[in-house]
Amino acid sequence: MNLPLVSRLLGIISWLIGLTMAFSLPAAWPQFGGHAEFEARGFYGLVVSIVFCFAVGVVLRYIGRAAPDTLYRKEAMAVVGLSWVLATILGAVPYLLSSVVYTASDGEPVLMGIAEALFESQSGFSTTGATILTDIENEQWVPRCILFWRSSTHFLGGLGIIVLFVAILGQGSAGKALMRAEMPGPSKEGSHERMQNTAWVFAAIYCGLNLILIVVLRLEGMTWFEAICHGFGTMATGGFSTLNASLGGFESKAIEYTVVLFMMLAGTNFTLLYLSLLGKPGKLLGDPEWRTYAGIIVASTLLVMIVGIYVTTDFNQQGDLTSQEEWETAFRDGLFQVVATLTTTGFGTANFDLWNNFSRALLIVLMFVGGCAGSTGGGMKVIRHILFVKILGREIEHSFHPSVVRHIRLGGESIIDPDLPRNILVYFGLVALIFTVSCQVLVGIEPDSTWVEAGQPVENKLVDSASAIAATLHNIGPGLGIVGSTQNYAPFSAASKLLFTFLMMLGRLELFAVLVLVMPSFWRQR
Amino acid sequence: MNLPLVSRLLGIISWLIGLTMAFSLPAAWPQFGGHAEFEARGFYGLVVSIVFCFAVGVVLRYIGRAAPDTLYRKEAMAVVGLSWVLATILGAVPYLLSSVVYTASDGEPVLMGIAEALFESQSGFSTTGATILTDIENEQWVPRCILFWRSSTHFLGGLGIIVLFVAILGQGSAGKALMRAEMPGPSKEGSHERMQNTAWVFAAIYCGLNLILIVVLRLEGMTWFEAICHGFGTMATGGFSTLNASLGGFESKAIEYTVVLFMMLAGTNFTLLYLSLLGKPGKLLGDPEWRTYAGIIVASTLLVMIVGIYVTTDFNQQGDLTSQEEWETAFRDGLFQVVATLTTTGFGTANFDLWNNFSRALLIVLMFVGGCAGSTGGGMKVIRHILFVKILGREIEHSFHPSVVRHIRLGGESIIDPDLPRNILVYFGLVALIFTVSCQVLVGIEPDSTWVEAGQPVENKLVDSASAIAATLHNIGPGLGIVGSTQNYAPFSAASKLLFTFLMMLGRLELFAVLVLVMPSFWRQR
Repeated sequence: MNLPLVSRLLGIISWLIGLTMAFSLPAAWPQFGGHAEFEARGFYGLVVSIVFCFAVGVVLRYIGRAAPDTLYRKEAMAVVGLSWVLATILGAVPYLLSSVVYTASDGEPVLMGIAEALFESQSGFSTTGATILTDIENEQWVPRCILFWRSSTHFLGGLGIIVLFVAILGQGSAGKALMRAEMPGPSKEGSHERMQNTAWVFAAIYCGLNLILIVVLRLEGMTWFEAICHGFGTMATGGFSTLNASLGGFESKAIEYTVVLFMMLAGTNFTLLYLSLLGKPGKLLGDPEWRTYAGIIVASTLLVMIVGIYVTTDFNQQGDLTSQEEWETAFRDGLFQVVATLTTTGFGTANFDLWNNFSRALLIVLMFVGGCAGSTGGGMKVIRHILFVKILGREIEHSFHPSVVRHIRLGGESIIDPDLPRNILVYFGLVALIFTVSCQVLVGIEPDSTWVEAGQPVENKLVDSASAIAATLHNIGPGLGIVGSTQNYAPFSAASKLLFTFLMMLGRLELFAVLVLVMPSFWRQR
Repeated sequence: MNLPLVSRLLGIISWLIGLTMAFSLPAAWPQFGGHAEFEARGFYGLVVSIVFCFAVGVVLRYIGRAAPDTLYRKEAMAVVGLSWVLATILGAVPYLLSSVVYTASDGEPVLMGIAEALFESQSGFSTTGATILTDIENEQWVPRCILFWRSSTHFLGGLGIIVLFVAILGQGSAGKALMRAEMPGPSKEGSHERMQNTAWVFAAIYCGLNLILIVVLRLEGMTWFEAICHGFGTMATGGFSTLNASLGGFESKAIEYTVVLFMMLAGTNFTLLYLSLLGKPGKLLGDPEWRTYAGIIVASTLLVMIVGIYVTTDFNQQGDLTSQEEWETAFRDGLFQVVATLTTTGFGTANFDLWNNFSRALLIVLMFVGGCAGSTGGGMKVIRHILFVKILGREIEHSFHPSVVRHIRLGGESIIDPDLPRNILVYFGLVALIFTVSCQVLVGIEPDSTWVEAGQPVENKLVDSASAIAATLHNIGPGLGIVGSTQNYAPFSAASKLLFTFLMMLGRLELFAVLVLVMPSFWRQR
């Protein structure tokens, strides 16, 4: 393992993060942040953080100054995994230096500690959007410029730290090796000339959609500050807001439907969006993954609406709505929550934790589905589920027709990659194992008193914990009960917060780039 | 598909079931059942059921009278799957004809319906031990001879309907084809001469252990009737009892430790027990699966004891025990519940639903583990988990060392079957998919009012439902909350009971033999 080279590349990542941080400085002035006076605490905290990033970069590059240039597969995996570890640590520094305040479980305001800062930083970069901040509208507790940095981590995480790196620096075959480990979805083929191109297309579509969404949100009544933060949160499928009540706090139908549309776009394969822009929308509409994705949204929304209206009174809990208003609410809240969950954004407009158990269970299942490959949507990805079901069906048939070898067909084409079925099955196996072990560990290390102090029923500990693991592993954000849409992750112990931090990174990098880092054989010289 | 041949073989199964039923007739007399007077209702119900079985057998054999003898793979799978469907239906007839009574959710006594009878029959054959009967000690509601039949279904299910068939009739290569589809565990190799031999060894060990256990339980204070029923329930890893309080109702340490020992034996590979009898105990003690199985029992028991004593007061809930008594209770109850759950027996001595959440979650995880391959223990089997973890570890290593092809090693030997890794991953994938879909369906079809009427918190619907699905799919019996160790499955709707019935059969036959029956392509002539 050529560790000096790894160090040198990490040095560049460090500078990129410092550079991104600089864009948050303007929000310290009242003109942009919309607050009363210049935020000295946030501003100087950011400045010192930026200097720190550049210093770290200099040291890392100095360590690797004499390293040969060739980047093999192992080094590439190490760079990707470690760059996210580094980003999480560097991204946490501003929270600590600006003395951000939240409320602990006893209701007293306290400064963010290291575990909290790492959690918030990773939640941003991994585009999870889970938070430990209890009052983000309080400018004395959370400076606007720090809130802007928090949303900036979404922007950077949605684009991809490595994608940015490759788009700017190219790196030839090294760039390809790097991007393979970070790009979402199961198959990442293509020549290395095309990889920088892919990175540029992805970045261009991403930035373009961000820009359009920000302007639209501004026109619909947000300030520039709010529009940028929510634009970043939407297009990265992150979910950080600037209001305690999340997106629902704006109480605007126009904003909600706009965000639904852009969440759906953010969960769509960007290559297909690019082809649509080139005048080939048929590629998008005929894509089996996108059709399934759209079908899941329609079917889930209908189920949530029908059960919520005919079986329970989820959308008319006060009992004061007319039938038409109830249908409208059901459509608006149901669609929003289904899309926010499936795309792994996790914005909230309605408290879905008050919905019936069927709809709550359905949302948990949707957490395990995720967006399309090649989008910013997290989770396991729709394409993996399509292939998973097809593979299992074929195996059942294989059990009574052993001689029949059928290739799996997708959208009229045979899939010939012989490793794909096994890779899909391994991915599902790892998710199941990580999910189960994490649930058991969380239930073990987090005392029952956390639920008591948070005013939540201890009886729900198992299902709340499972939902928290799913919501962090798949980069959603909110779950059920103690981590429900009106709650947050503040009550958990530091150990649990570090577990969540690890899971968020695992989920964002689709397991392997992080798992190899904890394998001793990965680090052994060979 | 040679359906007439399938029909003829099913005819023999039908006779075998009728024959087994006849052994329950003596329990109708007070001398054996230990009740007040001759049970006419139960006796005549059984007699008519036996006649019915033989009549069905005659009809099925008549349909297949002219069929050619060759049994191909597809016919073998059809026979295995359908023979369990047939057994479930025939096994349900005595409950219906003897007018067995249970209490519905409104507390009123009602006659068992078709869904209830099918549930109880499948729960017996699949050695699950879940029940819808609410008062089995009431002889007016449940005749002793019907209770004996209920335990007999455990005996037959633990042995295996097909194993019995092959042991008696041989059938050459057909017997091998049949047994492959019914024997537990992932690999069932061996010549077809050896298959009848395997069936005989399995049956002999099984009957021998049953006999020893029954005599020991008799000596420890049970009546012959009780001893036989609990012997069947233990060695089949079933869990049906003759007392409402399950095995705990005897309040005897000797009985509990005896049953723990025999549950552990029932969950051990019978071939290894046979080799130990032949003077080679080293084969058992050196077997990687058995060592893991024993390790899981020790580790889980210690965890349950330590958390239950140091973190909570699970084993001293009244606060009246000395420290030594608390440790004794923890050991006795902890070990019993861990072994009862891991081996998928599901007997109860303590109400583990009152334990802390960590221990409850651990028991749910153990439900997914199961016993050893080649035992009567259900579930996914320890060996599959060992291979699963090894396969995933190898795949992670493969991601950074693509050129390294390593065979998976188990107990010093390389596994060379190239299909095994995929088969293991497919099995786990199917379990995950079936579990998730079943949970969602159950939460959807079972109304919240079921929990209200059963006096259980509706908030627990999700976790209770998940535990009920796991407890039936893996053939355990009790789960959490509404299906906890002091509860039963009576409150559920008929639709849910049929879902559970289907899951119990799926679990007992390790998925494939049942799943093929619902694939249209299986039935297409080819």
